[in-house]
Amino acid sequence: MDDLTTAGFQTLSDLESAARAKLTDPIWAYVQGGSGNESTVRDNVDAFRQWHLRPRPLAGIDAVDLRTSVLGETVSSPVYVCPMAYQALLHPEGEAATARAAAAAGQLAVYSTLSSRSLEEIAAAAPQGRRWFQLYLQPEFSASEQLIRRAERSGYSALVLTVDAPVLGPRDRQTHDGVAIRSPVPIGNGPGVVPPARAPAFQDGRYAFPPDACVDWTVLERLSRVTSLPLVVKGVLTAEDAAKAGDLGARAIVLSNHGGRQLDGAMTGLDALPEVVRAVGARTEVYVDGGVRRGRDVLVALALGAKAVGLGRPVLWALAAGGEAGVHRLLDVLNAEVAVSMMLAGRRTVAEIDRSLVVRRPA
Amino acid sequence: MDDLTTAGFQTLSDLESAARAKLTDPIWAYVQGGSGNESTVRDNVDAFRQWHLRPRPLAGIDAVDLRTSVLGETVSSPVYVCPMAYQALLHPEGEAATARAAAAAGQLAVYSTLSSRSLEEIAAAAPQGRRWFQLYLQPEFSASEQLIRRAERSGYSALVLTVDAPVLGPRDRQTHDGVAIRSPVPIGNGPGVVPPARAPAFQDGRYAFPPDACVDWTVLERLSRVTSLPLVVKGVLTAEDAAKAGDLGARAIVLSNHGGRQLDGAMTGLDALPEVVRAVGARTEVYVDGGVRRGRDVLVALALGAKAVGLGRPVLWALAAGGEAGVHRLLDVLNAEVAVSMMLAGRRTVAEIDRSLVVRRPA
Amino acid sequence: MDDLTTAGFQTLSDLESAARAKLTDPIWAYVQGGSGNESTVRDNVDAFRQWHLRPRPLAGIDAVDLRTSVLGETVSSPVYVCPMAYQALLHPEGEAATARAAAAAGQLAVYSTLSSRSLEEIAAAAPQGRRWFQLYLQPEFSASEQLIRRAERSGYSALVLTVDAPVLGPRDRQTHDGVAIRSPVPIGNGPGVVPPARAPAFQDGRYAFPPDACVDWTVLERLSRVTSLPLVVKGVLTAEDAAKAGDLGARAIVLSNHGGRQLDGAMTGLDALPEVVRAVGARTEVYVDGGVRRGRDVLVALALGAKAVGLGRPVLWALAAGGEAGVHRLLDVLNAEVAVSMMLAGRRTVAEIDRSLVVRRPA
Amino acid sequence: MDDLTTAGFQTLSDLESAARAKLTDPIWAYVQGGSGNESTVRDNVDAFRQWHLRPRPLAGIDAVDLRTSVLGETVSSPVYVCPMAYQALLHPEGEAATARAAAAAGQLAVYSTLSSRSLEEIAAAAPQGRRWFQLYLQPEFSASEQLIRRAERSGYSALVLTVDAPVLGPRDRQTHDGVAIRSPVPIGNGPGVVPPARAPAFQDGRYAFPPDACVDWTVLERLSRVTSLPLVVKGVLTAEDAAKAGDLGARAIVLSNHGGRQLDGAMTGLDALPEVVRAVGARTEVYVDGGVRRGRDVLVALALGAKAVGLGRPVLWALAAGGEAGVHRLLDVLNAEVAVSMMLAGRRTVAEIDRSLVVRRPA
Repeated sequence: MDDLTTAGFQTLSDLESAARAKLTDPIWAYVQGGSGNESTVRDNVDAFRQWHLRPRPLAGIDAVDLRTSVLGETVSSPVYVCPMAYQALLHPEGEAATARAAAAAGQLAVYSTLSSRSLEEIAAAAPQGRRWFQLYLQPEFSASEQLIRRAERSGYSALVLTVDAPVLGPRDRQTHDGVAIRSPVPIGNGPGVVPPARAPAFQDGRYAFPPDACVDWTVLERLSRVTSLPLVVKGVLTAEDAAKAGDLGARAIVLSNHGGRQLDGAMTGLDALPEVVRAVGARTEVYVDGGVRRGRDVLVALALGAKAVGLGRPVLWALAAGGEAGVHRLLDVLNAEVAVSMMLAGRRTVAEIDRSLVVRRPA
Repeated sequence: MDDLTTAGFQTLSDLESAARAKLTDPIWAYVQGGSGNESTVRDNVDAFRQWHLRPRPLAGIDAVDLRTSVLGETVSSPVYVCPMAYQALLHPEGEAATARAAAAAGQLAVYSTLSSRSLEEIAAAAPQGRRWFQLYLQPEFSASEQLIRRAERSGYSALVLTVDAPVLGPRDRQTHDGVAIRSPVPIGNGPGVVPPARAPAFQDGRYAFPPDACVDWTVLERLSRVTSLPLVVKGVLTAEDAAKAGDLGARAIVLSNHGGRQLDGAMTGLDALPEVVRAVGARTEVYVDGGVRRGRDVLVALALGAKAVGLGRPVLWALAAGGEAGVHRLLDVLNAEVAVSMMLAGRRTVAEIDRSLVVRRPA
Repeated sequence: MDDLTTAGFQTLSDLESAARAKLTDPIWAYVQGGSGNESTVRDNVDAFRQWHLRPRPLAGIDAVDLRTSVLGETVSSPVYVCPMAYQALLHPEGEAATARAAAAAGQLAVYSTLSSRSLEEIAAAAPQGRRWFQLYLQPEFSASEQLIRRAERSGYSALVLTVDAPVLGPRDRQTHDGVAIRSPVPIGNGPGVVPPARAPAFQDGRYAFPPDACVDWTVLERLSRVTSLPLVVKGVLTAEDAAKAGDLGARAIVLSNHGGRQLDGAMTGLDALPEVVRAVGARTEVYVDGGVRRGRDVLVALALGAKAVGLGRPVLWALAAGGEAGVHRLLDVLNAEVAVSMMLAGRRTVAEIDRSLVVRRPA
Repeated sequence: MDDLTTAGFQTLSDLESAARAKLTDPIWAYVQGGSGNESTVRDNVDAFRQWHLRPRPLAGIDAVDLRTSVLGETVSSPVYVCPMAYQALLHPEGEAATARAAAAAGQLAVYSTLSSRSLEEIAAAAPQGRRWFQLYLQPEFSASEQLIRRAERSGYSALVLTVDAPVLGPRDRQTHDGVAIRSPVPIGNGPGVVPPARAPAFQDGRYAFPPDACVDWTVLERLSRVTSLPLVVKGVLTAEDAAKAGDLGARAIVLSNHGGRQLDGAMTGLDALPEVVRAVGARTEVYVDGGVRRGRDVLVALALGAKAVGLGRPVLWALAAGGEAGVHRLLDVLNAEVAVSMMLAGRRTVAEIDRSLVVRRPA
């Protein structure tokens, strides 16, 4: 616990500054970097600025309830921790610190296949926490299956399949300053677990990708056969794919461009939200991540139809700034911002955050 | 009177610079700060820049008349002084200086529940001035009622109920540099008077707000029962709420996001103006505040249907820069800008400032 | 002649830099300044950037002809020199230098009532030049009439009535750094000639303007009665007023916001062009000024329906930079840019510059 | 080969920096400069930023194939090298280095009439490379015909007629810092070959251009009569001209504003793409150049209907940075970015890059 250091953090921006001061240049490049020249990273943040709130005061609110459910599980807030690899780069306790903080806050956290700690260690660090397991498909399906089994045994309650990273996007900053992306720190889930392949090989006139990068929609069926965990598809950005995911049994989708780290120039999850919710909102839960920095951003996403909102880089900042206490402080600060914003907006519950709360910012 | 110091002020921007030079960092943070990262403060100013004026020269104008009425009272200008707390932070005379300057100018001023001077002192400072009383509901309704009684006795001619601040919004700058918001200087209306509560308490899974923060629309009826002062509802931003306020007896509403100090990301009062005027303009007076810095801004607001336009931070700058003389100079400068703009726009009276005067700035 | 100094000027921007280096701060403030915080000055330049050109190559052009007519008079270019006061502030020869340069170029120049040189001196400096006389109405109509008589006798072939400056707009920069606007140098047309009044006087609750500031549309009729010179109304920005001017006998109008020096926040002449040309283009010539800095800007204005395009501040820069030779160089450079742009756009003549040449820049 | 120097280049931006460091100011001005104040150069790059990608993951892709055809010839990538003059300014080997790199990559390159090396030398440097010849019409048609004959004999397989440069646009930067444009280095194709004329001469009231600048659409017919090479018209920006080119036998057109170097204020090729493809896409191949800096830009252009995408300044940067190896590295880096972007976007082949891949960036 680093209470003294984190006590002063009032905003996510404070945490960012504190993290910058603590981290080496290569690790900072890894955390902040995105694909290409990072315009997609910036687009994620800007997308939220394009909406204004239409508050409804005098709503007679004595208390605000942030609780909601994701796939039927009650959580204390619609904000969850996105799966992020290699958290030991930020703090020696890595995902264990994140897990303890999220569990203490009653919030969902999703853990990456590429966690620095094993999924069992993460579960043991916070047995009561709500946790989902994020899967990067492994070269052998049996290896993926083994990870799923372990996740089932360790109390992970949903399987989040990331589909936007069959290979890694080009990241200028990392290329120039960065840590080597392939296992910069050991992968907690074992030496057999591998990250997405870095680059294609040019042969016979084509760019051939490692065989495990070749995945199609049938994978959803294959996964359904080996686990009864509800399936979440992460990295979809179109109504077409959202519908297809639902048709193939996905219970939820995450609109995401992977924090701007994968396809350079991809649209933002937030911009995709209206079209996707219109298409599948009635039957599939829709989450969104990327660019969330303030309580108001959470309200915007919920008003546009998101069921939950993922928090990415800020968690890494918080880890670096103060380990478990840092993440705890982060969640506290953000939830309080959400709560105060809801109060001022006249929304008592998450369910009351409807489309009429937002209006496009005039051009 | 600080005539010599204020004589040189030609624009509101001069007053801002002069105030900055005189004030300590924490007080400056209090004055300038807004909720979140202050994008809403900037939005307020930017909103006016999105409109251009369509002047009609050769209108045969020998004189321009800024006089208008608010709730039937004649005022010398459609510009009024917004209610702002703790004016002794800016100048030892506080609201008394403001009151003398506004009265001398023949302009309406609204005084905050949280004034540094008592409402009786303010009235005594400028007995002839037009003054309205802004009410922050007190934890006990009887305390609110007492304030209203005192306002009635001291010649305040309307009651302005602020509805957008049941709790305080998060303000990064104040948090970092600022004065403690809870009574940074004594509240003139007495030790029993309290400002809006700062933050919710997390308990039983919800964010509970102090009981007095829980207010609904029935408060309008309760206030109507205890006073015959006309009621103005301040802090509404939607046509829905404007209609509701009118239905419940409000004689006027103020479109405002509280100077960008409350709900981070709120739409601006100016952006709300067209929809609200369309909905209720025929029966309810609509005022707007936030971001007014030049005479042209006043014309834009009036052209979009505002009956009057509130001036906030600039009054604090003026107070700091030159006390009563500063505020007097501020009103002089701004009214003269309005008058010259009307002359150049071909509008002899406030009533002639119609919708055809403005056009959206091409994107 | 300052040939050596001006030989190196390749663009209008070069002339601006050279002028800045030569002029004192107050005179620079006078030249560059505009009303308010000068956002309207910037809007003028930006308005042209919102249009892109759609060139039509392979048009079989061996030569480009910039000649056109204004009110039936042939000129060598659609670019003319706007009326600008006090040109002796920039160069000792003042308007005489401008007149010789414009005449040598075969271009129209309009001379201000407030010229530093008398209208007779200007005519004598370049007897063959095409010149129009710009009238600021004088307090006594007889004084205006006298000026018109002198203009008729000195070969001025049209009368340009400025209608957007019954009083002067507030100009922050001039107020702070500037020369006193009321006759900073002697007015060449005589001691009896007076500039527009500076400010209103507040009396009896109204802002009273000097009597001569009170002008209405009947002035057009009065002027028509005392002169047979064709009448041009300068400073109109709406279709309504353009139509009215035409109805009352004006032969042309100038869409202008007075270089952003008068009504702060006024729309730009260029933005007004489409609506005005649609309304009156068939019967009234429409000119535009404000913000022209490159040959392409001239094409944009002509494509949107302007019959001629006025050049303002750049002429002052050129005067300061090199006197007559500077202005000559300016006109040469700009006309050559227009000619090359027309060649590349596939337009042989001014008449071929049609609406299909421009497209709104995508937002 | 400069392998060591080029090995570190990861992005086109790296190549730009390396080139800047190696080149003298005048040559840098020549490379980077554009017409006017270079807003058109910037518009070219910005145009691509106005589109976002809508990726379709889980497409079951094992390899990405960048191969496509241009006028029936198979190339390894839809990216080709634009014709650019005077490449010896960048590297002593000039176009020979470019030719070897493009041939090794299997990509099309177009060589300028104004190449530093003769078209025979270029062909000899990379006999197997796909090469097209770009023609600047010569003052005598017979001289143009001779060049075409030589191109035919040297295995150039198409004739690209540039139509947007009958004269040179005004280029501020070159004017101020630049190399003399008329043959800054010897023209490889012989002393008789001349570049487009620089400027018009003002005579008899018109701007007369050199006779060879006067070209109309009949030139297409004349060229068709003297060669059976397929004809490509470069420098068209409208649907009207695209249709006309097709009617007159052009097999392809290049939407281009000449890298922002000719008509100041011209629309961008990318902005023209939708309207042109709609008009002629079914019968005429449409290419686009200008502003391509990342793999994502290539996808945007293809999604909007371009059959191929030209690369300009980056090739010059690469030549300066590392000669043949630099250009090779450039093509490698860009193709790999395209390939990874296609993989992440779920497009296996160039043909699969359809209009549904892109969406306008929300304003």
